[in-house]
Amino acid sequence: MQYNAVPLQKLIEQFERMPGIGRKTAQRIAFYILGLPENESKAIADAINDACKKIHKCSVCCNLTEDELCPICKNDKRDHSVVCVVEDSQSLIAIEKTKEFSGVYHVLHGAISPLDGIGPEQLTIKELIARLGSDEIKEVIIATDSDIEGEATAMYLSKLIKPFNIKITRIAFGLPVGTDIQYADEVTLSRAIEGRRNM
Amino acid sequence: MQYNAVPLQKLIEQFERMPGIGRKTAQRIAFYILGLPENESKAIADAINDACKKIHKCSVCCNLTEDELCPICKNDKRDHSVVCVVEDSQSLIAIEKTKEFSGVYHVLHGAISPLDGIGPEQLTIKELIARLGSDEIKEVIIATDSDIEGEATAMYLSKLIKPFNIKITRIAFGLPVGTDIQYADEVTLSRAIEGRRNM
Repeated sequence: MQYNAVPLQKLIEQFERMPGIGRKTAQRIAFYILGLPENESKAIADAINDACKKIHKCSVCCNLTEDELCPICKNDKRDHSVVCVVEDSQSLIAIEKTKEFSGVYHVLHGAISPLDGIGPEQLTIKELIARLGSDEIKEVIIATDSDIEGEATAMYLSKLIKPFNIKITRIAFGLPVGTDIQYADEVTLSRAIEGRRNM
Repeated sequence: MQYNAVPLQKLIEQFERMPGIGRKTAQRIAFYILGLPENESKAIADAINDACKKIHKCSVCCNLTEDELCPICKNDKRDHSVVCVVEDSQSLIAIEKTKEFSGVYHVLHGAISPLDGIGPEQLTIKELIARLGSDEIKEVIIATDSDIEGEATAMYLSKLIKPFNIKITRIAFGLPVGTDIQYADEVTLSRAIEGRRNM
């Protein structure tokens, strides 16, 4: 039986589809929105429409931005000869927060995943190659995730970039800071040994 | 530093305010929405506007509905002489799902909570009293939550309804089905002993 009015049910279904939201949370959010004053619920709808209308890909690095160029590509103080390739804008933000990287980025908007029907042509790899051909880029740091898709994408990119005679690096994988070796999983530990450095 | 474009940040903030959603989930949802085709993101915004526009309180029981009367108040097969008073529509749905109750409801839209500035006048108590005066109601079941606010509301309502000479009942509190007595908290256990029944 349908317990909720149709427009309410539709709203709950919209939230249920979102990542990290289950049925109960979707219901809670829908009732929360219905309980808001009209201007506040409208503000949520407007924020969605507004963001989807105004936000698009930076014409250089494909990061999400309001303007033609994203703030990082626009910034003269950044080192435009080092490009860090990431899967998505969230990864970019995570790296920015470390304040360790002063180069620029390239956002792929995904990773190669044949099972999900995502091949290289669905990603912004074409745009990356175009940058390599025209710009004075000295190093490409591949910072895709350390899962199967991220690794496959990294391999694919490194083969593709080789002919450009540009230095290609991959971010380091090993023990997260603060972990006990005894609790580390085997794959991480072997990567940590494999990637050992002189000290 | 602001890592996200303004419209994106605004969207994240809208989601962060929602119950059960933290910063990370809000960010994830916002990026998910930006990644949707335009018609799908618009559908979410429309669902919000639509629900807020079309859904209002039933003119009898104050449940959320699209029509003048909610499906339960409209239903002749329900026993209109028994009114179950609940705090919100979610409680109503929970009770409906038990399929144990064939009466009608009254939705208070909250509970008395002086600390949050919610007094009886913010709830639909006026509407409830009006129903008692005019309709042929034989029993009022008070099914507010078993927390402090719910109990206070139940006490307040029972005093208010007494003069009408209507049977007033409160749903039973005790051990949830399937629990071990040894793990029950003391308050629940004392309520279970206090509310014991002949067998």
